[in-house]
Amino acid sequence: MNVAVMGYGTIGSGVVEILKVNKDVVAKRAGEELNVTKVLDLREFEGDPISKIIVHDYKDIAEDPDIDIVVETMGGVEPAYTFVKAMLENGKHVTTSNKALVADKGAELIRIAREHKVNFMFEASVGGGIPIIRTLNSCLTGDVIEEITGIVNGTTNYMMTKMTNEGSEFDDVLREAQAKGYAEKDPTADIEGHDACRKIAILTSLICGQQVDYQDVPTEGITGISADDIKYAAAMGRKVKLLATSTKVGRSYYCRVAPFLLEPGHPLYHVDDVFNAVFVHGNMLGDGMFYGSGAGKLPTASAVVGDIVAIAKHIDKNIYLEWEEEKLTLANPNQQSYRYFIRTDLDKDAITGIFSKVDFVDAGISGETGFITDELTELKLSDMTEDMGKEHIINKIRLA
Amino acid sequence: MNVAVMGYGTIGSGVVEILKVNKDVVAKRAGEELNVTKVLDLREFEGDPISKIIVHDYKDIAEDPDIDIVVETMGGVEPAYTFVKAMLENGKHVTTSNKALVADKGAELIRIAREHKVNFMFEASVGGGIPIIRTLNSCLTGDVIEEITGIVNGTTNYMMTKMTNEGSEFDDVLREAQAKGYAEKDPTADIEGHDACRKIAILTSLICGQQVDYQDVPTEGITGISADDIKYAAAMGRKVKLLATSTKVGRSYYCRVAPFLLEPGHPLYHVDDVFNAVFVHGNMLGDGMFYGSGAGKLPTASAVVGDIVAIAKHIDKNIYLEWEEEKLTLANPNQQSYRYFIRTDLDKDAITGIFSKVDFVDAGISGETGFITDELTELKLSDMTEDMGKEHIINKIRLA
Repeated sequence: MNVAVMGYGTIGSGVVEILKVNKDVVAKRAGEELNVTKVLDLREFEGDPISKIIVHDYKDIAEDPDIDIVVETMGGVEPAYTFVKAMLENGKHVTTSNKALVADKGAELIRIAREHKVNFMFEASVGGGIPIIRTLNSCLTGDVIEEITGIVNGTTNYMMTKMTNEGSEFDDVLREAQAKGYAEKDPTADIEGHDACRKIAILTSLICGQQVDYQDVPTEGITGISADDIKYAAAMGRKVKLLATSTKVGRSYYCRVAPFLLEPGHPLYHVDDVFNAVFVHGNMLGDGMFYGSGAGKLPTASAVVGDIVAIAKHIDKNIYLEWEEEKLTLANPNQQSYRYFIRTDLDKDAITGIFSKVDFVDAGISGETGFITDELTELKLSDMTEDMGKEHIINKIRLA
Repeated sequence: MNVAVMGYGTIGSGVVEILKVNKDVVAKRAGEELNVTKVLDLREFEGDPISKIIVHDYKDIAEDPDIDIVVETMGGVEPAYTFVKAMLENGKHVTTSNKALVADKGAELIRIAREHKVNFMFEASVGGGIPIIRTLNSCLTGDVIEEITGIVNGTTNYMMTKMTNEGSEFDDVLREAQAKGYAEKDPTADIEGHDACRKIAILTSLICGQQVDYQDVPTEGITGISADDIKYAAAMGRKVKLLATSTKVGRSYYCRVAPFLLEPGHPLYHVDDVFNAVFVHGNMLGDGMFYGSGAGKLPTASAVVGDIVAIAKHIDKNIYLEWEEEKLTLANPNQQSYRYFIRTDLDKDAITGIFSKVDFVDAGISGETGFITDELTELKLSDMTEDMGKEHIINKIRLA
């Protein structure tokens, strides 16, 4: 079978590398040899052996009858969407690592693939090397998934781990992460939670079988987390982590991306550095957790190659994926309840005058008071912080 | 599609329950409704609605043309083997939770299934609700798996956790586990490591694609672990866990079941109580870890139902599984290297006279000395303990 790769960047070149290094074992599992015959890229890669198979027009791939499987590792919605759609319509199977494409067009591309009796796969779009997509689609199929909560962004998890271990400030850790290549020059998508938001939209779509629009997911990043917040977290015996989470309520889901305070018993508490993990609760399975490298060239490319092998084993068959285009209306996030940690410049009397029962937290920071509320809905909390006067709130972090 | 269940015990009745409670979601994912039409059991279950579909002769299922999928949850090699073989030969797909059967006859039953264009699946045979089998067979297919290490026995992990947290003695914890139903009346298979041994043989067979005989796996249980060992572990900041592990060496694997001392950075250190987890290292993926309920009625039955859905989606197709009958000769376990923790009644001078470099461990236990060796092969260690005089060794535990 012949494979084409669209986008010869970090992941795309990783796919080519794995298909070369693990050629024999991959061929054995796929049932036949897999050869990369074309690579689409704007660049020429002169001097690199790959230059011999570089093409610049996606139609060279779409219209090549010898190509069976196409890998899309370009990133971004366009032109990836146009290219992928053309590939499927030309009867080619596609696997992608592109979360933006999958969050935006996943349901449609799955339908197009089904209509053309090919497969559209996207294991690498969430959790890098963690096989969470196939686990949801093909393993936990006996369960109603009642909760899915992940640490799905390596950059922010690395930063939170650094801040926790070293007590450093956000800006310093960000600069260091950028220097190490863990954060991009423009880190917005990671630190503002946009990346995690697309990933939880994809995961929620898969567990409910309908389209969840990422624009509907309330999303907070980690830019509001300071070294003082981390001191309070330590005083509570907790860690701050950016979680992307969905919880079933009736026929819909509460969905959210935000920093949370995790206690040591939480299954994601020990997930540090650039690692990712996804916690799942099924109504029959109970608790499960899947951990691994959430990013990086080879782990992510490994997930793409897993898709290629799955496609090769189902070359004449569309594998049914439950993700319809009909949109799911998410449950009203203001009705969701949490306990909240709040920092304020009000004194304890003022706090207990507003909140019936609170646990004060002493992190040795003067001029302010930290406390944990009882469980309250977002709406109720909003009313109460209104009573406090929003200008008196220094920060607010949910407890997980 | 019609399903028959052989063995209406804990797991079998759990499968029937899930197919009832999650009927709609399972039907949607499977592509059609799944009905349990026959249950094989020696008992009658009078008064229970199940009694209406009880049969006592497996041929009533094997020869029923309306049954497509058979669930085997009887346990033990015989008569399960005879029954399962007959089902496959009669063109019925089979899923089993029976690790004894899979460890002993897996490769043969996979071949028979392939010859009859049906599927033989066994997700529930290792790790209960953790989808480790499908992860290895269908997800991590781009990787050469260089290590797989699991906590795959819930009973012993519960006991080790209790001993660690409460400082109790082995016999007391075993009695308590039996009272709670976590350990069987005859606990031999669990505490002597036989159960874990079958599971690592299955996992190793899947990652190498050949038959690994469980009889070839050096196996130690946890019966030699005392409250004093746990005190030493605490003094080292470690925990004792029963691990089942395989490590690639050349074209074969070192394979072993034994108690190990894990440090907090080990991915399995935090896996406590009856939970199971499997750590995997792939040459491209890097580290991954899969965690969940390793036993119990519904988690295990959930894995069986996942198999049923996968079979329903591939009802006309054999899904290729790489597990040939040709036997793999395991690497010589005496060549494998570890650091060892040793307790002896010899004094420090005698110890340093034999071992060039050791770290002494003080757990405040009088009349003996605890120390950790450098990395040594099993063979070399055996020579050195010979030099110490075997009668002077109180216990020996490997470090992970």
